[in-house]
Amino acid sequence: MPHELDQILISHKQPDFRNRLGKFLDSKLGLSHFGVGAPNRHTVEEILDKFVENENRVAELLAEYTWTFDKVKLTPEQFRIRKEELEKAHKEIDRKLLKSIRQAIENVRKYQTEIFIGNFKHPGIRYTPIKRVGICVPGASAPLPSTVIMCAIPAQVAGVKEIVVVSPPRYEGSIHPVTLAVCHELGIDEVYRIGGTQAIAALTFGNKTIKEVDKIVGPGNQWVQTAKQLVFGTVGIDSIAGPSEVLIIANEKANPAWVAADMLSQAEHNPGCAFVFSTSQKVAGNVLEELKKQVEQISRNKETIACLKVHSGIAVFANMDDLIKEVNEFTAEHLEIQCGEQSREIAEKIENAGAIFIGDYSPVAVGDYWAGPSHTLPTGISAKFFSPLSANDFIKSTSIIEYDKEKLAVCAEDIIRLAEIEGLDAHAKSIRIRQED
Amino acid sequence: MPHELDQILISHKQPDFRNRLGKFLDSKLGLSHFGVGAPNRHTVEEILDKFVENENRVAELLAEYTWTFDKVKLTPEQFRIRKEELEKAHKEIDRKLLKSIRQAIENVRKYQTEIFIGNFKHPGIRYTPIKRVGICVPGASAPLPSTVIMCAIPAQVAGVKEIVVVSPPRYEGSIHPVTLAVCHELGIDEVYRIGGTQAIAALTFGNKTIKEVDKIVGPGNQWVQTAKQLVFGTVGIDSIAGPSEVLIIANEKANPAWVAADMLSQAEHNPGCAFVFSTSQKVAGNVLEELKKQVEQISRNKETIACLKVHSGIAVFANMDDLIKEVNEFTAEHLEIQCGEQSREIAEKIENAGAIFIGDYSPVAVGDYWAGPSHTLPTGISAKFFSPLSANDFIKSTSIIEYDKEKLAVCAEDIIRLAEIEGLDAHAKSIRIRQED
Repeated sequence: MPHELDQILISHKQPDFRNRLGKFLDSKLGLSHFGVGAPNRHTVEEILDKFVENENRVAELLAEYTWTFDKVKLTPEQFRIRKEELEKAHKEIDRKLLKSIRQAIENVRKYQTEIFIGNFKHPGIRYTPIKRVGICVPGASAPLPSTVIMCAIPAQVAGVKEIVVVSPPRYEGSIHPVTLAVCHELGIDEVYRIGGTQAIAALTFGNKTIKEVDKIVGPGNQWVQTAKQLVFGTVGIDSIAGPSEVLIIANEKANPAWVAADMLSQAEHNPGCAFVFSTSQKVAGNVLEELKKQVEQISRNKETIACLKVHSGIAVFANMDDLIKEVNEFTAEHLEIQCGEQSREIAEKIENAGAIFIGDYSPVAVGDYWAGPSHTLPTGISAKFFSPLSANDFIKSTSIIEYDKEKLAVCAEDIIRLAEIEGLDAHAKSIRIRQED
Repeated sequence: MPHELDQILISHKQPDFRNRLGKFLDSKLGLSHFGVGAPNRHTVEEILDKFVENENRVAELLAEYTWTFDKVKLTPEQFRIRKEELEKAHKEIDRKLLKSIRQAIENVRKYQTEIFIGNFKHPGIRYTPIKRVGICVPGASAPLPSTVIMCAIPAQVAGVKEIVVVSPPRYEGSIHPVTLAVCHELGIDEVYRIGGTQAIAALTFGNKTIKEVDKIVGPGNQWVQTAKQLVFGTVGIDSIAGPSEVLIIANEKANPAWVAADMLSQAEHNPGCAFVFSTSQKVAGNVLEELKKQVEQISRNKETIACLKVHSGIAVFANMDDLIKEVNEFTAEHLEIQCGEQSREIAEKIENAGAIFIGDYSPVAVGDYWAGPSHTLPTGISAKFFSPLSANDFIKSTSIIEYDKEKLAVCAEDIIRLAEIEGLDAHAKSIRIRQED
């Protein structure tokens, strides 16, 4: 009997391969593309405008939108999580879990410190930390403590003095205690139970309830991401993120069961996209069979199957060169390479990807929680220009220029010539006047 | 007889100082602030939407908007500057000017190479150049060849393979030959005579006329900047720039004539903002007198006086500590420090500025054309989170994660615990399945 997932297996040689992949690429693009996939852009704009136009009514607006979107009634003094609530959450967290969290924190801090470029020394440039940063932590009924770790530690490594965490009140009208415990563990005491566009508005424009920040980072749904796009430039923004995706390169050495498990771990994000590119028809077929088997064992299998059918695929290629070409076009957020000892060599040829997971024992979950690099990664095709969030996103540079009398005299005529051709006479005069004494 | 510029001299102690400065800061903010200072945002959105919705009519739309905004009639084959036109411009450029341009290019290339971090080595991160980049070059009747130098060389140092230059056809229906000559000198042969929102739309969404780019950088008016804000995330964007500004710190050692000359060189940008913060009432007064005298000698003095009256000021502070505090709040694009041998020490205390010009012989013009750092700098208060454009803006990083069987076994239980607390069962399963063999 045919299985409803059978349709996701396609061949590179099939005439509809480019259509299928093209359609997927379109949907990837659509998720971030201006004017497409952002049906609520004008609604988001209206909310932001309300905050700009009613700067004395910010607390009321926050309460109003929190009721509309999160169905929670809050008074102004309830937005900020009280110190006692943070302490209590930390005190009551499962000790084994806290131990795991502490090791994850150590791993992330080590990696971020090692890749930090803020100590770069050159007389013509100086790096300084951004002063005040807002972190968006998604808040479904389950907590996302890993997002606090993956966003706040890079900021701390960079030397950010003030870190603010916002998360919607989706867990019993507050934020899940594990998320609060992680904030407390990291010494973050400015935590607000607000989310969505209204949180971005409050962080951007500032008010009596929350002081404005200099940069906003972190994941979120379309209400958060569209708002982040619209306030870019008024504050700093890390990147605009869409649904999470994985692309797995699997040659004949790949273990089909593991490949299928990794596809499912992405699809469970719902929406999440999981693609496999393989040079082996046999492996591709086996991955599909494993997928059918394993999908039955996970909790929300109906939604996951739907997600796999729409946003996923297993594609077979004639050879690795063709495959790699498509991978670079695809520009995956997460790219797994399960190709035995060939994996590293393939990784060298990848031009565009958010994160590359090399070999059989590096599933995406290792990066999500543990290895060190942030799990806040560029989605869609944005790894063509965005980078994973890192400590380097929390500094800014200042150029330093210092000329003395002799040095300026040598180049004065050149500068005057360049200024005059641009019609900027006063620029030329500012050089000339210093040659007169 | 009182001079109309007298009003720009204010004291830190005057009750209206904070109002004056506050008003200025508001206007700085307003220039970049969402919903304020962007009266044409919806018009810009409509233009962008037109390009998204009419992907087969892009050439027509470009022609239509070029006629509307630039009053130039172009056919589709005229958008791109022909190779012969680039060669001719280069052949005919004044030889002395070319020599100055070549030295400027060498200075910029040296600096950008020295501060480039793309060769950073760490097993967990890899930097790669962005593949295709668009550079916006403003095109009034005067050419801005320096913008080509300041944007294209950082891209070349980073290893960008495809560089596209766009500039509006404001010089005899084309682009000024000096700008074209600089493009040719730098080996850039993809140059289009288009500007404004329509150029951003074409570069972002791509079409038969121009292939889409991965990142757009460079200065421009509100039509360009607002469009850049709205397409952020669909493509990479460097920053959102408003009018240019200088803030000059002048103590009793400053030369009032030079300070005034530097204010004028900023004000001639029209709009441009020029502020002086001084600890000396005497110097402040002398700067004002110099300003009145020198403004008479520059070409467009009426506009410059208007600009100085609205967007500029000379403020006197009781002491240097108070002054520096305000400087860090002000967050200048260009910050000059003309305080004799104290200049360097003051520079150390600056937290927020796009570029710092230390000492009497470092006017802004040195940075605009010559010293090495890009003159594309964060304006408004955005130096709190944006950096000067540099070679580091033309790379993106990929995280690299590689675990083996033993390494994964050690942390498997931790990762499973962290995944399960987030309710992500399939994530946990992707680890567990690898522990079973």
